Amino acid sequence: MESILFQPLIDALASGQPRAVIDAAKLFNAADLAEFIEQNCEGDLGISLFQRLPLAQRAKVLGYTNPEIQLVLTQATPLAELALLTAEMPSDDRVDFFNLLEEPRQKQLIRKLDEEDRDDLTALLAHAEGTAGALMSTDYAVFESGITASEAIDILRKTAEDKETIYQSYVIDEQQVLIGVVSLRRLIVAKPDAVIDSLLATGLVTTQTDTSQDDVARLIAKYDLLALPVLDEHNRLAGIITYDDAMDVIEAEATEDIHKGGSVSNLDTGITTASPFSLYRSRIQWLVILVFANIFTGAGIAHFEDIIGAHLALLFFMPLLVASAGNAGAQSATLVVRGIATGDVVNRDWLRLFNKELCVATALGLTMALTVWAVGLFRTEMVIATIVAITMIAVVLAGGLIGILLPLLLNRLGVDPAAASIPLITTIADVSGVLIYFTIATAILGT
Amino acid sequence: MESILFQPLIDALASGQPRAVIDAAKLFNAADLAEFIEQNCEGDLGISLFQRLPLAQRAKVLGYTNPEIQLVLTQATPLAELALLTAEMPSDDRVDFFNLLEEPRQKQLIRKLDEEDRDDLTALLAHAEGTAGALMSTDYAVFESGITASEAIDILRKTAEDKETIYQSYVIDEQQVLIGVVSLRRLIVAKPDAVIDSLLATGLVTTQTDTSQDDVARLIAKYDLLALPVLDEHNRLAGIITYDDAMDVIEAEATEDIHKGGSVSNLDTGITTASPFSLYRSRIQWLVILVFANIFTGAGIAHFEDIIGAHLALLFFMPLLVASAGNAGAQSATLVVRGIATGDVVNRDWLRLFNKELCVATALGLTMALTVWAVGLFRTEMVIATIVAITMIAVVLAGGLIGILLPLLLNRLGVDPAAASIPLITTIADVSGVLIYFTIATAILGT
Repeated sequence: MESILFQPLIDALASGQPRAVIDAAKLFNAADLAEFIEQNCEGDLGISLFQRLPLAQRAKVLGYTNPEIQLVLTQATPLAELALLTAEMPSDDRVDFFNLLEEPRQKQLIRKLDEEDRDDLTALLAHAEGTAGALMSTDYAVFESGITASEAIDILRKTAEDKETIYQSYVIDEQQVLIGVVSLRRLIVAKPDAVIDSLLATGLVTTQTDTSQDDVARLIAKYDLLALPVLDEHNRLAGIITYDDAMDVIEAEATEDIHKGGSVSNLDTGITTASPFSLYRSRIQWLVILVFANIFTGAGIAHFEDIIGAHLALLFFMPLLVASAGNAGAQSATLVVRGIATGDVVNRDWLRLFNKELCVATALGLTMALTVWAVGLFRTEMVIATIVAITMIAVVLAGGLIGILLPLLLNRLGVDPAAASIPLITTIADVSGVLIYFTIATAILGT
Repeated sequence: MESILFQPLIDALASGQPRAVIDAAKLFNAADLAEFIEQNCEGDLGISLFQRLPLAQRAKVLGYTNPEIQLVLTQATPLAELALLTAEMPSDDRVDFFNLLEEPRQKQLIRKLDEEDRDDLTALLAHAEGTAGALMSTDYAVFESGITASEAIDILRKTAEDKETIYQSYVIDEQQVLIGVVSLRRLIVAKPDAVIDSLLATGLVTTQTDTSQDDVARLIAKYDLLALPVLDEHNRLAGIITYDDAMDVIEAEATEDIHKGGSVSNLDTGITTASPFSLYRSRIQWLVILVFANIFTGAGIAHFEDIIGAHLALLFFMPLLVASAGNAGAQSATLVVRGIATGDVVNRDWLRLFNKELCVATALGLTMALTVWAVGLFRTEMVIATIVAITMIAVVLAGGLIGILLPLLLNRLGVDPAAASIPLITTIADVSGVLIYFTIATAILGT
């Protein structure tokens, strides 16, 4: 949002009148207020706006600001007020915020919460990060089996304020086991005296508290769900995950996978907000691993020192052949890794994908062999150009096929294919490229 | 979904009783039925299920199947029936389906539609692919200003069936200009006689028909919207885009960006469904471009033939230095490209990011210089090890900084930074790596 649109807020803050600030803030979404606060956090304008907002709005805005800013905004808040603020937050935002605090402050805060909020918080804290349990909200609407549509609407009307969504409600039995889901759409359209059990959606989709958050996001996207119910080990309803959280997960997972493809590991945030140290840490690991991996390529070259010394012209084409092997491998690996991430590719597809790649990489290799052969004729003798062309077919094929198989193998072994595939494959393709090239050259030119 | 879960469907189809199939299908979501049909399309079981489903369910299932399967399922459908089927589809699915058909069939079909559907389809067809206009649905709920909450709920009750969502409704004036958005949540909670104008959401978020679909998805994700209203050039409400479409866009854009990072361009689908020819086409372009780019690296090596001939030990470390430059560049470029895609990085950040990278890449370079120096001491003379270590600092710094600047430059020039950055940067880093290495070696060892 352009900063000029925030002028009413800036003016109101400058006027020094609390009422004017509250009125100006009414014009904006929580997401916009959070953006303004983040942008103006250093100049204190942001904090001063935050402190002047009504409690409920502050709780909402906090859910839209990034973790560091959440801490800055609340570090000076007295404990009693912080307890009121966290009580106002949706249960999923609350547990995330709570996790940011230092342990002594956590202990003080939890004692100030009322029993219900405290139990809720403790239950949510028990789930491992990255699971459905850690993502879910406990602010869902439930009905007992047997009530009518109009009774259900009445319940929603009275309890709407505390619910994450009232568009999906959950029908449970006495043991809190989930029977089904009913949408507000069906409740509204139904005859007022229709029993809700007759209005349940078909094909109930649920997940478990320990399901990974990307599987959760994928379920929500696949079935176009507004909210996904999360069950505990006894099939009791433990919480719900709403579409907006799924969207954030999809975006964050994509960022993580893109980073991994560029050999950047474990970076929670983007380059703008990440500290130099966390950038260093996320990058050094693969760089050093790849140094060692590339020593093999160097050793490969050293092994062929004699033929290289005798035909230095071979060196001219080495980067091109090695890079082509690496590029072809990176391409097929990228396709397979993304396919695994979206659920499009599963391990048992390996033979089909291998055969497809055999066909595609052969075509790619032939095209590129022709290209380098033509280039070679201008730069060197016929025999070297021919060696280069033959090598090109072989290395593109080798790179492409390794690119298909390695991610599937890693996946099979339980290693995240996104984390290792691209840099590893490039390096393996490099080594293979050198070996194939000079082996073919030696065979044709003699030692 | 495991295929065993589809057993009721398989049994019903085997029984040959139409009624049994319809009853079995009632147990499943449209998304699951679509999955079953896709998996069993070749064996005809899929088509036979599809043809036995009631019209409304068929229309819904069609929206969940991929384009090729949509064509397979409907190729034998008589025109009159196809018209009924498309009339049942949500307007956004309908236009996508229509775009799949051959022109003669399009013309025949459009003549069979009733006037309202025809006008709607024609209007939606006018928007360019990848824009909000092409993504939006026209099945939204509108109210005139001044009605009460209970009147509004009554209208929704009667018209719900034809609406994409009834959870967000739009209040428009006589010129169809959008005044505001009201949620069903507020309508339900409000006093029945409250005027809807008093229930409008604050901070109205809208978009234009020509906005790109990724900007649309980003708006929906940022504001946690259920639906985003799309306005035409006169600020009249033209359609809405719902969160589920935004989720698909985020996923598809991430796939595209990941593919581009692996130098795979313009591939609409994943490796499983893409044809060998479209895979070839999406990969050959960058492979050939990179062959020519790598000729420069080769030329760089050829230029330093003398010093290489004199000190073949230098070759041993070449792959490692060149790869490190490329890897460091790929890392910083990946971070910047993703930052640009998520809106986290904008062009004016360049100096700040440059300085940050200066600091991070120096630290990375020093760490790696130490590593290769230690390795070098075991493998070669002290002087070569020292040359390699100095080169390492220089190439990591060069690679890292190019990786920051090139994507921003491309973005500035209006070229998609995701499409070109990674392969280009790896190649530029390769060339620079060779030049820096042998220049330093020449300076220290003499020619």
